[in-house]
Amino acid sequence: MSTTTRSDSLQARLLRLLRDEGPRSRAELADRLAVPRPRLLTELNRLLQVGRIREAGPAASRGGRRSTLVELDPDLRFAAIDLGATSIDVEITNGRLETVAARSEPFDIRSGPIPVLTRVNEMLAKCATEGSHQRLAAIGIGVPGPVSYREGMPVSPPIMPGWDRFPVRDALAQEHGCPVVVDNDVNIMAVGERYGGVARSVDDFLFVKIGTGIGCGIFLNGEVYRGNDGCAGDIGHIQVDAHGPVCACGNVGCLEAAFGGAALARDALAAARSGASAALAERLQLNGTLTARDVGAAAAAGDVTCIQLIRDGGRRVGSVLAGLVSFINPSMIVIGGGLAELGHILLAEIRSVVYRRSLPLATGNLPVVLSELGSRAGVVGAAVLASELAYGQPS
Amino acid sequence: MSTTTRSDSLQARLLRLLRDEGPRSRAELADRLAVPRPRLLTELNRLLQVGRIREAGPAASRGGRRSTLVELDPDLRFAAIDLGATSIDVEITNGRLETVAARSEPFDIRSGPIPVLTRVNEMLAKCATEGSHQRLAAIGIGVPGPVSYREGMPVSPPIMPGWDRFPVRDALAQEHGCPVVVDNDVNIMAVGERYGGVARSVDDFLFVKIGTGIGCGIFLNGEVYRGNDGCAGDIGHIQVDAHGPVCACGNVGCLEAAFGGAALARDALAAARSGASAALAERLQLNGTLTARDVGAAAAAGDVTCIQLIRDGGRRVGSVLAGLVSFINPSMIVIGGGLAELGHILLAEIRSVVYRRSLPLATGNLPVVLSELGSRAGVVGAAVLASELAYGQPS
Repeated sequence: MSTTTRSDSLQARLLRLLRDEGPRSRAELADRLAVPRPRLLTELNRLLQVGRIREAGPAASRGGRRSTLVELDPDLRFAAIDLGATSIDVEITNGRLETVAARSEPFDIRSGPIPVLTRVNEMLAKCATEGSHQRLAAIGIGVPGPVSYREGMPVSPPIMPGWDRFPVRDALAQEHGCPVVVDNDVNIMAVGERYGGVARSVDDFLFVKIGTGIGCGIFLNGEVYRGNDGCAGDIGHIQVDAHGPVCACGNVGCLEAAFGGAALARDALAAARSGASAALAERLQLNGTLTARDVGAAAAAGDVTCIQLIRDGGRRVGSVLAGLVSFINPSMIVIGGGLAELGHILLAEIRSVVYRRSLPLATGNLPVVLSELGSRAGVVGAAVLASELAYGQPS
Repeated sequence: MSTTTRSDSLQARLLRLLRDEGPRSRAELADRLAVPRPRLLTELNRLLQVGRIREAGPAASRGGRRSTLVELDPDLRFAAIDLGATSIDVEITNGRLETVAARSEPFDIRSGPIPVLTRVNEMLAKCATEGSHQRLAAIGIGVPGPVSYREGMPVSPPIMPGWDRFPVRDALAQEHGCPVVVDNDVNIMAVGERYGGVARSVDDFLFVKIGTGIGCGIFLNGEVYRGNDGCAGDIGHIQVDAHGPVCACGNVGCLEAAFGGAALARDALAAARSGASAALAERLQLNGTLTARDVGAAAAAGDVTCIQLIRDGGRRVGSVLAGLVSFINPSMIVIGGGLAELGHILLAEIRSVVYRRSLPLATGNLPVVLSELGSRAGVVGAAVLASELAYGQPS
């Protein structure tokens, strides 16, 4: 079942408004939320008493008696954690989701939950010193695999050995004494992009992450759609070529086996060794290894083989997306993840296939665009989920 | 945007309960709807006054004062219309959606809206004589193409020349003086199957119609998901073979060009003429033409070529569904439409591909089953939509 942390209580709507628009007068808040003044004042008093909000000086006059601004407690802190296959990103934000402190480190998710979460806690502790806060109001965390959202734990995650059903939510909640929300890494990127990126206020869109692997976050009717087992959006294993390479999952010709960071590094190595690309051969000799970034750099410098590799990949991604566009008829497609840095060559090819292959009615007004938040999409989304969780809990 | 006719007012919930469970005492209704007795009685009195419901004799005693049953007005009538590519099915139901009169006729949708709707009205008039009713409370109609649900009209429907933006809803509403709801034919089949078929009370499922063409109805969170332009579920034009036959849509290798009633008739003709299938050659000589039904009959009698044609088709459908299962992670897949009559050979092949190709987590508990309502799924769904519309309108 699809689930959500989003509460529609007056308190939640009030805190969200202060988060998104900053200090507001009582009069403005009553107008914006369309609630009777006395009801709003009761709620505001309750929030003042528990320290969630505070008075913030006089508002600009609207005539009549001067009103006082209220704002979120400036000491409110959320932690946002984005676990990638090979990286940990953490940010501490204030109640308005502005970054107070941030840290990023390479770390192998395959080290297992105890070493990874221990490192996460150390990074949070360092951030706490910088951000000089005492405690967190809530934590949002994204992990690179399917998640049981209800239980707050990964479920059969293919690239996270040792993490299956590890109680990530409960472990972090116990350590930090605050509520925690756990979601898939692609879902949090989609949430981030909708909150502060190119999909701002779009209710039905697909966020396609092309990184080491490929996944999709699905927004329907303004909510993340997670599917019956929490694994909706796992498009990396859709078959694109019945005679393609064998995938890590055991099947043949999966999208991820044809394109993505891992596949592109493999193809780059082959192109360097076969002599198809002099630029790649040079880079290989220089660095002893090749990544998707090398392909991007060589393509930008005009290497024909690299341009072709990116085009082939874009065509594969486009063919899968064309089918999904006919199926779910979204309002927008956002392309994110590390390989989005390949930029316009990739995007042009994806667009070309999607517009040519999907139902014309479904692509008439369909923007296919790059992520605005880039590598920050995950932490922004994790912070949004943390704030929704905290603001939705009655105080 | 996804939209719905479903209202959650007390009145709508009350009428729905009487529709689905029959006569009930006031006490039972108050219990089931969990509303205070006085509020329920007020609502019941209003419905009695306008003639929506009536008293229906004494209820079985629960001790204390004997309660009186209430039931839906027995003269309440809905019209359900299912327009296919080559057929018109209409049914008149009572308030409990039980069939009072029904008519089916072959009719070419390409005749255009005026001839088709004129014929529909004639069929409804004949049904009215049989069902001896004066007027309709609401009409539900499904059409074989994309629909703007909000505007109640087809939009750029590929196989319905002359119907683009024809105001189906308003034309029928004016003719019959009652509210009308227009939806895509596959969506109404999905609604029917959820109301009275194998997907009863399943909230997230796909209804795959394999008829002349192929389409998909999508239920998410208990509602039909229609997509941004109302064309979600158009899976017939997803590419399954880059070197496949040219499709009527102009693209190459669409699912519908590879399988479905039209493609199967084409392949059957080729098999009869090439001598690959003696059984088909015999039937062609006998009837002068071949349809999917001939392939089914010959396959049932053991014709190897026909069995292979069905298997090939099942594999194509399965490969598309495998991708959609990884993408949307549904709780159930229902296979319906005329070609579902091909039965277990088709179903076995679809299952085999879906279970082999989709993410294991997504198929762990995923039933892939045949429609229970068969050719009636459409009219049942149209009647459900009509009743939701009528019961949701305050009286």
